[in-house]
Amino acid sequence: MLEVCLLGCGGMAPLPDRHLSSLLIRENGKMILVDCGEGTQVSIKKAGWGFKSIDAICLTHYHADHVAGLPGFLLTLGNSGRTEPLTIFGPPPLAYVLSALTVIAPELPYEIHISELSSEKESSIEHGAFLIGSLPMVHAIPCLAYRFEIKRSGKFQKERAEEQKIPKEFWSILQKGNEIEYDGRMISPNMVMGPPRKGLKITYCTDSRPTEELIQFSVESDLLVCEGMYGENEMREKAIARQHMIFSEAAEIAARGNSQELWLTHFSPSLKDPETLLCNAQSIFLRTVIGKDLMKDRLSFDD
Amino acid sequence: MLEVCLLGCGGMAPLPDRHLSSLLIRENGKMILVDCGEGTQVSIKKAGWGFKSIDAICLTHYHADHVAGLPGFLLTLGNSGRTEPLTIFGPPPLAYVLSALTVIAPELPYEIHISELSSEKESSIEHGAFLIGSLPMVHAIPCLAYRFEIKRSGKFQKERAEEQKIPKEFWSILQKGNEIEYDGRMISPNMVMGPPRKGLKITYCTDSRPTEELIQFSVESDLLVCEGMYGENEMREKAIARQHMIFSEAAEIAARGNSQELWLTHFSPSLKDPETLLCNAQSIFLRTVIGKDLMKDRLSFDD
Repeated sequence: MLEVCLLGCGGMAPLPDRHLSSLLIRENGKMILVDCGEGTQVSIKKAGWGFKSIDAICLTHYHADHVAGLPGFLLTLGNSGRTEPLTIFGPPPLAYVLSALTVIAPELPYEIHISELSSEKESSIEHGAFLIGSLPMVHAIPCLAYRFEIKRSGKFQKERAEEQKIPKEFWSILQKGNEIEYDGRMISPNMVMGPPRKGLKITYCTDSRPTEELIQFSVESDLLVCEGMYGENEMREKAIARQHMIFSEAAEIAARGNSQELWLTHFSPSLKDPETLLCNAQSIFLRTVIGKDLMKDRLSFDD
Repeated sequence: MLEVCLLGCGGMAPLPDRHLSSLLIRENGKMILVDCGEGTQVSIKKAGWGFKSIDAICLTHYHADHVAGLPGFLLTLGNSGRTEPLTIFGPPPLAYVLSALTVIAPELPYEIHISELSSEKESSIEHGAFLIGSLPMVHAIPCLAYRFEIKRSGKFQKERAEEQKIPKEFWSILQKGNEIEYDGRMISPNMVMGPPRKGLKITYCTDSRPTEELIQFSVESDLLVCEGMYGENEMREKAIARQHMIFSEAAEIAARGNSQELWLTHFSPSLKDPETLLCNAQSIFLRTVIGKDLMKDRLSFDD
């Protein structure tokens, strides 16, 4: 199961009832924070999932509305008792930006592992149970979309294990993907496991113009969280000029990539009531939802 | 008249209903922001005084809870249409901290004038109608208390103007402090103005241990805004270790300095309901008020 909480759905500047864009993803107690705009630590408190189990942060890019909350977050994480290392992913120049921002958050009680991802080409990295993919976007500065996948192994096939006379005591070891040497022969998981089953996939994309690569990158996401800076179709020229998207463009990515659900986020402060413009997205992709602060969902495996 | 709005009364980390310590002071439409913790721009929006007329920021020190909101604030100030220069006051290393924080807020549409104040000795500088005083505090890093004074000239003495046969058309010019040459003689304001009258004074102090110098610095303030990180008298040892104050220590500064009123602020996140400990301050200084987000007051000249 994957749990997700939209911590904030605002772009550019926060509003009294709209925190800046940030997302929290939880799997089996471990959490990844995606972006950390000003106020993110307040949203995390409100979400009620705690701080201590956040062991990675994925930063899309280094505009203040996506990263200004980082120094305060890092301090609060330290005050929550964390001593284990924290990994921060982001495009270049990640190390430079972190050294600048931590000028006001010195002496943290844990190490930060910096993992700079390519801003030139798609990449993929394992982090705990997650497979984290990143894709360069089209924005004023290097910016990445992220994809979070939980892989799911095949079903354990009891009959095959019995046929091959594999003792029961080894079954759970094989189920966990480990090999065993028994009675002079090697027993590998593929001897008792069915083909891999469909896992879970969340794609997060802000800030960017839409691209063909993003459709491929997000294909068959269980949840696509995508920016919709402006709602009206008439705002497309402005969106192009500012390298953002309108609702209908985000919906087209979801539709063409065959996502299960689309959450719109990163609304312009000028967009007071995005709900009134939902039709502009739903006419293209019906399962579109207007993001709201602290909106949560649980994504479960198919069976 | 001086107007004041406590934008946030939290220390260390924000709570869902408690923004980080920050203060807004307004005189005749011009505003000074004191400190700019994460979330300050949201508080400013809630305060309803606008952004554009803030033309100076006074930073006490460079811990995240006092300055992490700066990059977002600077961007929002730019988006509010500001093109006039902004002055930022603070202790060393102000230029270094600003260059670090503006990594995530590049290309502002206005200039920033950096005015680094001494962290070794008391200083004083004029800024518009304000006389801004600063005093080094006792904290882990260089930290300043600030004093904001509005001077008030003497009363215009009509009888003296008439006696000296000064035409009425010059009266308002003299009242504004300007000299005039008329009928071959120099007429100066002191020929028609009474002695200077009592002005208005606000002193702001956080984060620090109490000092004798602070009592002198804040003497006869109309309003003293002072940190009270902890409420219980039993927390004094912890306050000493962390270089903060307890309520009773702040109250003693107000009492010995003969301030008119004390607002306590910068509460520890562990201090859930500071109101219940107000008695610890009021037993020393009766006119103590527990700070609350968006608490406002107007200070008026004596008559």
